[in-house]
Amino acid sequence: MPPFRITLAYDGAGFVGWQRQAAGVSIQGLLEDALGEIEGGAVSVVGAGRTDAGVHALGQVAAFTLTRDIEADVVVRALNAHLPETVRVLAAEIAAADFHPQFAARSKTYRYRIWNGHAVSPFERAYVWHVPGPLDVEAMAAAARLFEGAHDFKAFQGSGSDVKTTVRTVHESAIGRSVIGDSLIHYEISGDGFLRHMVRTIAGTLVEVGRGRRSAESMRELIASGDRSAVGQTAPPHGLFLVRVEY
Amino acid sequence: MPPFRITLAYDGAGFVGWQRQAAGVSIQGLLEDALGEIEGGAVSVVGAGRTDAGVHALGQVAAFTLTRDIEADVVVRALNAHLPETVRVLAAEIAAADFHPQFAARSKTYRYRIWNGHAVSPFERAYVWHVPGPLDVEAMAAAARLFEGAHDFKAFQGSGSDVKTTVRTVHESAIGRSVIGDSLIHYEISGDGFLRHMVRTIAGTLVEVGRGRRSAESMRELIASGDRSAVGQTAPPHGLFLVRVEY
Repeated sequence: MPPFRITLAYDGAGFVGWQRQAAGVSIQGLLEDALGEIEGGAVSVVGAGRTDAGVHALGQVAAFTLTRDIEADVVVRALNAHLPETVRVLAAEIAAADFHPQFAARSKTYRYRIWNGHAVSPFERAYVWHVPGPLDVEAMAAAARLFEGAHDFKAFQGSGSDVKTTVRTVHESAIGRSVIGDSLIHYEISGDGFLRHMVRTIAGTLVEVGRGRRSAESMRELIASGDRSAVGQTAPPHGLFLVRVEY
Repeated sequence: MPPFRITLAYDGAGFVGWQRQAAGVSIQGLLEDALGEIEGGAVSVVGAGRTDAGVHALGQVAAFTLTRDIEADVVVRALNAHLPETVRVLAAEIAAADFHPQFAARSKTYRYRIWNGHAVSPFERAYVWHVPGPLDVEAMAAAARLFEGAHDFKAFQGSGSDVKTTVRTVHESAIGRSVIGDSLIHYEISGDGFLRHMVRTIAGTLVEVGRGRRSAESMRELIASGDRSAVGQTAPPHGLFLVRVEY
């Protein structure tokens, strides 16, 4: 049987992240357990990217192979029947025999959401980082653009990582006030891959630019330095969304 | 001191509704308790409308009078410091001495949200009524328009009401697929006032039109009948939002 490719959304609150861990509930673990029931045996699920604990997904992609001959829309319904309501499979399709959701990905897009107002909307509070006080969004936008291109993002890598190279190519890096409302600031970044905590560390650094504590121009030097201790704080996970993965 | 007029948003989940009850947590009760602490004595809060248990608000309006001389933005901050994060005061201003949020209201707008897709987005599940299966939204839109104008909405009044007249004027009643996504259907209704459960009963009836169980045209007869037993089900509260109150 060829592998299935699924697209899924999840609210990251309460999960230890995408990857199965010794303790706690993971998205990968939930999917493998649900597929184990459907298959009647162990199933391995591979994801396009490992979202951290608390990080949300609008369009995560994963793949797995079943030995049973099941139609794609039956897989969607069966999985959703087993999964909690905070994790939803949006679509399933048959993929090429050698499909690997991580290695085949051409581009991933993340969105980081900031609430820049005095009172956080009750409907947004679980999905934004609350940053009150004035923010110079134009300076943040100028800074954001400097992350575009191929760079060594070593300075923006969280500890505990073990990757061959810290060079990544960012296709687009843009920030601005959302059309939904003036208090909401959306940062979107797409690229060929991301280091651990990279988007959250960039978001935290951009906020320091917005507060006037760093210049937009200083981003060049910061990237070039490769110095982890020189970057801004890691923004909290609940403001981050994996938006889509493109192939 | 003149009264304060505040605009507030709340996530209705877990509350017994706007109005203070013998048991359970109400929005009015939370505000009165918070203001009691600020004032150092009892404060009465009057709302523009009584939202039911589980119903949300994006722009509820309320009024109260304090004996202490406090600036409006201090009232906002002090209230938000006392209130849970699911209730946020968005703005406060000094109102006319005789301001009454309910009687002075020219128009109120409610939005009812329906999820018409197989898998409900994890980020929408607490704020939509899940109605799977095909829905004829054009027929629903034709039906919705027939609620516009001055009508006796007796048939759409929930039990346990005690109002002088069941005649209300609906300024606008429109339904359509949301620009956010094809699975989301937004019903918006504005009018000079609403009977208990009126919006939810209309929403439930419109869904029956969408399913082909009633014709759009049958709405005329249904309204004219005044027969509570002839209307559709009362749609669940968590899909309903009080959007704004106009003066």
